[in-house]
Amino acid sequence: MTDEELHGHLIGRQGSRRELNTPVLIVDLGALTRNIDVMAGFIAKHDVKLRPHAKTHKSPEIARRQIAAGAIGACCAKLGEAEVLAAGGITGLLITSPVVSPPAIERLAALNARTVDLSCVVDNPVNVAALGRVCDVATPLRVLIDIDPGMKRTGVASPEAAVALLAAIRAQPSLVYAGVQFYCGSIQPIADFRERAAAMEERADYLRTVIAALTEAGGAPGIVTGGGTGTHQIDPGLGVFTELQAGSYVFMDSQYLACELTGDDAGSPLETSLMIDARVISANVPGIVTIDAGIKAFATDAASPIVLSGAPAGSTYTFMGDEHGAVSWEGGRTPVLGEIVTLGTPHCDPTVNLYDTYHVVAGDTLRALWPVAARGRSR
Amino acid sequence: MTDEELHGHLIGRQGSRRELNTPVLIVDLGALTRNIDVMAGFIAKHDVKLRPHAKTHKSPEIARRQIAAGAIGACCAKLGEAEVLAAGGITGLLITSPVVSPPAIERLAALNARTVDLSCVVDNPVNVAALGRVCDVATPLRVLIDIDPGMKRTGVASPEAAVALLAAIRAQPSLVYAGVQFYCGSIQPIADFRERAAAMEERADYLRTVIAALTEAGGAPGIVTGGGTGTHQIDPGLGVFTELQAGSYVFMDSQYLACELTGDDAGSPLETSLMIDARVISANVPGIVTIDAGIKAFATDAASPIVLSGAPAGSTYTFMGDEHGAVSWEGGRTPVLGEIVTLGTPHCDPTVNLYDTYHVVAGDTLRALWPVAARGRSR
Repeated sequence: MTDEELHGHLIGRQGSRRELNTPVLIVDLGALTRNIDVMAGFIAKHDVKLRPHAKTHKSPEIARRQIAAGAIGACCAKLGEAEVLAAGGITGLLITSPVVSPPAIERLAALNARTVDLSCVVDNPVNVAALGRVCDVATPLRVLIDIDPGMKRTGVASPEAAVALLAAIRAQPSLVYAGVQFYCGSIQPIADFRERAAAMEERADYLRTVIAALTEAGGAPGIVTGGGTGTHQIDPGLGVFTELQAGSYVFMDSQYLACELTGDDAGSPLETSLMIDARVISANVPGIVTIDAGIKAFATDAASPIVLSGAPAGSTYTFMGDEHGAVSWEGGRTPVLGEIVTLGTPHCDPTVNLYDTYHVVAGDTLRALWPVAARGRSR
Repeated sequence: MTDEELHGHLIGRQGSRRELNTPVLIVDLGALTRNIDVMAGFIAKHDVKLRPHAKTHKSPEIARRQIAAGAIGACCAKLGEAEVLAAGGITGLLITSPVVSPPAIERLAALNARTVDLSCVVDNPVNVAALGRVCDVATPLRVLIDIDPGMKRTGVASPEAAVALLAAIRAQPSLVYAGVQFYCGSIQPIADFRERAAAMEERADYLRTVIAALTEAGGAPGIVTGGGTGTHQIDPGLGVFTELQAGSYVFMDSQYLACELTGDDAGSPLETSLMIDARVISANVPGIVTIDAGIKAFATDAASPIVLSGAPAGSTYTFMGDEHGAVSWEGGRTPVLGEIVTLGTPHCDPTVNLYDTYHVVAGDTLRALWPVAARGRSR
């Protein structure tokens, strides 16, 4: 039985959130909508566009809402995500990792032939030649030069390598040079705003050097894409990016909530919209309850989940294996078997990747089921 | 496009493993079959039965092979897994966590009414009463008393609590008392065999105390279930278990490979059958390549993945975000974009949970696609 069959009949009924099987991935529709609107309002006031990263949500439904608020498309980490979003009607897709394996290049060419305004990044002349051989000159593929900001993950490692790659792209009639990508992933989570801004300014100097070299070679980039939720308040002022890739802002996990996102003291204009509802399934040990959400319910690459509600103030969560977690329960009332504890996610992207369905709520009413359509599409 | 559509046409073709989109979850059919046979041979020589834990593989296909080799059914961590295995024709299912939430109890009763020989564990009289109300006296549910071995996760906390729970079960005509569960999860991964055996012997003394109290109350358990891959060579000699729950033995992840599984020096009779094939997608930094497998390709709750083949001897893996990993590449030949690196999984259960399909291989030939049918079925 699918989630839709199990839970579809609860949609719109007051209190129905509390009737869901747990653990369940919850999106607060009001908070999600406010986050989309806050970011859209920020972008509208600056000379940049927003192509938000869909690797966060993996959902054509959420991408449509971002585009309705002004976004120009969506970024995807992998080809498989782009295939799913394209099938969901999303255009203006940018694949932010190189696509290099032979079967993937075939799929990329096929996707490009049937999709409006698809782009992908490249960082190696060998890959450029392979893409050039497979793509069709009738529907050339837009490619961006991926520039390594020092993470040593992907991207060209020097201005000279960028210029060489530009020449390689221009040698392929089935490819179109569309610009550059410069994603400073390791700067995004720096907690202190000034420190984050200084790191970004230093890296922007390097980016300008690469752009100058490309421009001198006749390849002034039309698109300069980068940035994330952590640096979105900093990036427009650098005057170098034409578009931003911020993605996590729709959900605001506890990693980003711990960041000082703005330079003033007004606090974050973004709020948590993503959470997990779990239930107490054992309560035989004083001071602890066991809930039905463990390693298969939360990504474990960041900190532990945060107890948002349902347990006494100050309660904390500890992983207890694949299917269970311990929530400390000191003081307050006696826990009741089956009662709901709501937790915040430490790192939203890989947590969402564990679930098939968003259960979208307003208060305690289930409002909609949205598939996590690109879950597991890492290929 | 599903994995089946993408990869089905490669089945049986020599070299087809190397044509798969990556990252891909690989099962070596020979190693899997040998592991199933080795465990079946061990069990046949001892006075215990095997009800292997399907939370490891989540696959009716693998459960069928275990049962064909002599297993008496399968354990499931959650009701959702049991629903999927039952739909796949597996009988003799034991759900090893309490089922307590109201919607789950309804589903459990429905599953029990249509399934042969279903059992679940209980650890609380309130839960027993709730199950008793919903189950049907015409098809009573078999329940086992879950005894906490000291993990403070689930289970009754004392012999007295076990006896009280026995009375609660007997008060419900729609429930049948079937025995006890005693799963020592924290003992399984102790690396040293003698230390693990001593810990298990100490805990078995406590288990005997609880069984004596139950027996005195007229509740000698028909089933005493517990044990895992780590203790399977120890448990039969304790003379208290009637059946074992070992699950990871089918795959042997690097956690269990690091354990001294037997008391002699013969080495492990079990071998790795599960791995991830990934590809080099960037190679612009001397001494490192970037592969297309990151936090969404491997569970991160244990150690890092192990490089099994495809990179120079001594290469190691480092996570580089959701979609990427760095593999050190010192000496040897120059890496080639798109070439395959094969990695061992640190913790198999939650790693499998990230994939929809097993790609089953013999050598470099793709032999079959098996769905990870109960992936994500944590409810």
